[in-house]
Amino acid sequence: MRLFTVGPVMMFPEVLEASGGQLPYFRTEEFSGMMKESESILKRLLGAGPDHRTAFLTASGTGAMEAAVAGLFSSSDRLLVVVGGGFGRRFAEICDVHGIPHDDVVLPFGKRLEASDLEVCRDKEYAGLLVNMDETSTGQLYDIRMLSEFCRSKGMLLVADAISAFLADPIDMRKDGIDVLITSSQKALSLSPGISIVVLSRGAYERLLRNESRLYYLDLKRHIKDQERGQTPFTPAVGTLIELNVALRAIDSAGIDDVVARTARLAAYFRKGAAERGLRIPGYPLSNAVTPILLDSGAYDVFLRLKDGYGLVVTPSGGDLRDRMLRVGHIGNLSEEDYDVLFEALDEVLGPGKG
Amino acid sequence: MRLFTVGPVMMFPEVLEASGGQLPYFRTEEFSGMMKESESILKRLLGAGPDHRTAFLTASGTGAMEAAVAGLFSSSDRLLVVVGGGFGRRFAEICDVHGIPHDDVVLPFGKRLEASDLEVCRDKEYAGLLVNMDETSTGQLYDIRMLSEFCRSKGMLLVADAISAFLADPIDMRKDGIDVLITSSQKALSLSPGISIVVLSRGAYERLLRNESRLYYLDLKRHIKDQERGQTPFTPAVGTLIELNVALRAIDSAGIDDVVARTARLAAYFRKGAAERGLRIPGYPLSNAVTPILLDSGAYDVFLRLKDGYGLVVTPSGGDLRDRMLRVGHIGNLSEEDYDVLFEALDEVLGPGKG
Repeated sequence: MRLFTVGPVMMFPEVLEASGGQLPYFRTEEFSGMMKESESILKRLLGAGPDHRTAFLTASGTGAMEAAVAGLFSSSDRLLVVVGGGFGRRFAEICDVHGIPHDDVVLPFGKRLEASDLEVCRDKEYAGLLVNMDETSTGQLYDIRMLSEFCRSKGMLLVADAISAFLADPIDMRKDGIDVLITSSQKALSLSPGISIVVLSRGAYERLLRNESRLYYLDLKRHIKDQERGQTPFTPAVGTLIELNVALRAIDSAGIDDVVARTARLAAYFRKGAAERGLRIPGYPLSNAVTPILLDSGAYDVFLRLKDGYGLVVTPSGGDLRDRMLRVGHIGNLSEEDYDVLFEALDEVLGPGKG
Repeated sequence: MRLFTVGPVMMFPEVLEASGGQLPYFRTEEFSGMMKESESILKRLLGAGPDHRTAFLTASGTGAMEAAVAGLFSSSDRLLVVVGGGFGRRFAEICDVHGIPHDDVVLPFGKRLEASDLEVCRDKEYAGLLVNMDETSTGQLYDIRMLSEFCRSKGMLLVADAISAFLADPIDMRKDGIDVLITSSQKALSLSPGISIVVLSRGAYERLLRNESRLYYLDLKRHIKDQERGQTPFTPAVGTLIELNVALRAIDSAGIDDVVARTARLAAYFRKGAAERGLRIPGYPLSNAVTPILLDSGAYDVFLRLKDGYGLVVTPSGGDLRDRMLRVGHIGNLSEEDYDVLFEALDEVLGPGKG
């Protein structure tokens, strides 16, 4: 099986080598040292400073989204949410469950987010903006600088889900004005799913401390406090945290710019080949993580035929787009040759001129 | 390193073999089939019926405890909590965070839970009882039949954390009158940490459906609904779920009685040797999962010396018991020979007559 998915993805040899062995006990100095090293590398990769705080949660990215939203905001706040697909909707649903009022900037499928979409909200007061940097369900990469300028001008906290954007698209928390960044192990980090991470600026952390926590397991305060000594409040996914340390050290020594450039190259290679085949790609700005392919019908069937007939797993879509969109991932251990194989299979499955 | 811990523990060869490889994509029929098989074996092992429902959460056991408590109860209920150590306290704290009123049956360290401890609560109304079958922090195994008779006589739901008891002590959800059972991957299942499981009786599930959910990521309703087709609402710890399937099939073919008997034999072997050496063991009923060893002082230092000098990792204690208690685990891939090695090291570290 070759995975062109957006998580789990093809894993790298150094991670595969580090994973799967007998796990160690974790209430030890050795484990704490590893966790502190991971935090320090991660913050450097994200352009975060020594004042930033980090929480490692044993949960999917959604758990980290909830931990951030419910940890930082309450029913007396109002939030602005960019809802450009399934993951934006998830932010809105999290607000609903926790009784946090929110206004949504809803993008119909295919529409690009522009500064003017926010202007209608210019005169209303918001505590923060929730956005998925890459709305993974459509692949749209939002203009984070435009969003952070809007936030700064209104004194709003910017909470960015960078779950699929981290390592795929350039990110610098301080330069981009991101106050809270969320990411997850199974995207471009290319690890086993099970660990998600929240990094908070000093201002966001101070807000967290002031806000009353209504979550126990996903309590960011406790996670951050324990991480100060390299520990977690509850038994974490030890194996995935070991993989994380291996991956972060590898990325750090390769240089994050090279890692992002590699994904960008793969995305460009695929998009060029797809265009040559007349495959339709949406016109909005795309993350390097994933390319959506639009079909008139039968997209889910194409997913099944590629998987069962060729051992090639692209990412199917849910809901309304199930039969109209496939998503081809560029994160994980993939090469241009992998896309050549995929193109050959697409040519056969979609027929001449369309694949 | 040889682990005498209570999670992660020594893993079995068939699990190690299944873990650590490239992970598959999980939104597939193949993965769904595996998850449905896991549920069906698990329910058989637990003495649960076809009407029972199962949620597989990507979280530690604490996440599953919170999912169960906040999913089933609300601020208009009152709960009874057995607080015999750190994990009982955790149940009480979860109630506090979610505003659920509770009375606690508090056991001072060393006291055995008896039917008379509950009698003071006989005339008060409770929606449910929360108990850690094995209070892992002290190793006390509570009399689950006594507790379930009390619950039945008062129409209370019995929520049992069997995180360390499952596969270590005999459990039969129906015969034992357990309505909600919680367990976790890294205890006697001997897998990587990261997956926890909640199994609900029909009555408990009906209550869950009636109760308004205030959790998003740990929402049991959504997990149970998706598990009906072998899926999870959010990306799960795919690797640990694959390990789980391997382990459940192995346990099922070995027979759960044999698995429990094996742990019981190891516990008896260790306790006999410990008694011969004059090591002090508490007098309350003990789970087969773990044996507490009481020392006058320096327990944490013994933990460090065993780990660093001998590569033998026993479980240290937290809080007040840090220097007075070590816990020696009997779950995971351990043998009598492992305890012989541990005894030899204890003899050296504790000195003659005391180890």
